[in-house]
Amino acid sequence: MKFDIVIVIVYLRHMIQVILLGSGNVATHLFQAFSKVDEIEVVQVFSRTVSNDFPETLQTSDYSKIKVADVYIICVSDSAISSVSSLLQFENRLVVHTSGSSDLNVLDSKNNKGVFYPLQTFTKNKAVDFSEIPICLEAENVSDYTVLEKVAKSISKNTHAITGEQRKALHVAAVFVCNFTNHLYQIGNEICWKNSIPFEILQPLIKETAEKLQSLSPSKAQTGPAVRNDQKTIEKHIDFLTNENQKEIYKILTKSIQNGEKL
Amino acid sequence: MKFDIVIVIVYLRHMIQVILLGSGNVATHLFQAFSKVDEIEVVQVFSRTVSNDFPETLQTSDYSKIKVADVYIICVSDSAISSVSSLLQFENRLVVHTSGSSDLNVLDSKNNKGVFYPLQTFTKNKAVDFSEIPICLEAENVSDYTVLEKVAKSISKNTHAITGEQRKALHVAAVFVCNFTNHLYQIGNEICWKNSIPFEILQPLIKETAEKLQSLSPSKAQTGPAVRNDQKTIEKHIDFLTNENQKEIYKILTKSIQNGEKL
Repeated sequence: MKFDIVIVIVYLRHMIQVILLGSGNVATHLFQAFSKVDEIEVVQVFSRTVSNDFPETLQTSDYSKIKVADVYIICVSDSAISSVSSLLQFENRLVVHTSGSSDLNVLDSKNNKGVFYPLQTFTKNKAVDFSEIPICLEAENVSDYTVLEKVAKSISKNTHAITGEQRKALHVAAVFVCNFTNHLYQIGNEICWKNSIPFEILQPLIKETAEKLQSLSPSKAQTGPAVRNDQKTIEKHIDFLTNENQKEIYKILTKSIQNGEKL
Repeated sequence: MKFDIVIVIVYLRHMIQVILLGSGNVATHLFQAFSKVDEIEVVQVFSRTVSNDFPETLQTSDYSKIKVADVYIICVSDSAISSVSSLLQFENRLVVHTSGSSDLNVLDSKNNKGVFYPLQTFTKNKAVDFSEIPICLEAENVSDYTVLEKVAKSISKNTHAITGEQRKALHVAAVFVCNFTNHLYQIGNEICWKNSIPFEILQPLIKETAEKLQSLSPSKAQTGPAVRNDQKTIEKHIDFLTNENQKEIYKILTKSIQNGEKL
């Protein structure tokens, strides 16, 4: 009698299957980030029109053809989240949005709701390193939160449980430190341009102003004529500015620094 | 007969001798930068009171004891530049100030005037890498400019001939991109603090907003509800803010983004 011993090893790795709904900046950057990791498989991208940013074979524009997946991530403009979630033709699955300013409850109640909010500024054709991006998570129940956390941790070292109220606060704070800051850069650019100075000359200052925060609080890092109460320089600057809008911004921010709370 | 051949090589390296007048942030950072390079010797620091930031043996507070040097760099507050330069008891030497907003001619005419303006935000106890800092130079004559350029190039790769008018423009632009930007960071910090969110969560966004400028102009990098004309989100944000000052800043910067010139 002879025995043949056959050992079969079955290795099962659970990949989380994700479907992205939307084809804008957030969807594109998430797709690129998920494509680089083993834990996530993007099985489909729902997009109203065919987009060059995703493989054509993955795309659909038909709600009835949306596949089964573990997580559906809606990456559309805030005003469209509600209608996209209502048009989904399935129930009791995990559907999340990526909006900083929208409530969990804008999502249709037929599915389990959640939020997957990457706190970053995404620009087309500008790669970002997702590993440092804070991802703010919210879910209605613990098991959904666990799934969202796995998805987030697959691409970022920086994940946080954030309530709806906190997320709204963060979104407002992000407008100040990102959108408004960039607008101040633009004003700096305009002033340089009008005086034949290359804008690049301001870049080391811009970089240092941002990097300082790694070792100092903003109130400790504050420099300039406003915090010194150097009224003579402030008046010279206001006289120098010819653009009324820039003058107004100069005055209100100077006043705010001078009266500001100190944290 | 016998010849002894003796060859003596005399190697003369001209070190530029510098005297710093002032003991604040700019003087301290310049002293540290000059101390690291062979081309510059700081022979004296003039300071009204003894400062721990410089070797005691180098310090004097007596105008009559100021030594002979190639360049005198006045690093005092804008309002004191004129009087310090008038109190100097010598003539026809090169005396420069480090102010972005002061004219060359605030310096006393008994000496040769110049400007040595490092475009950076200096904070006590926060080291800066001088090699990237733009140094904006101005002088009354070519030979003085050449000396200033040598001094500047000894510590920075980034030196520029900048007229008085351009320097004033740069100083105003710097207030927008540095001082005002830092104040927006502080508002972000306050919003986080009031909502029990760690400010660190905003840091990757702050960093990316600054770094984006290396590949995009500020107008191309602009994101957020204002540039999207997303009035619904803008109203939600204004409602969310309880601080009247923050509300006012939000409104004026949003309006400015919406009406802004595009460079």
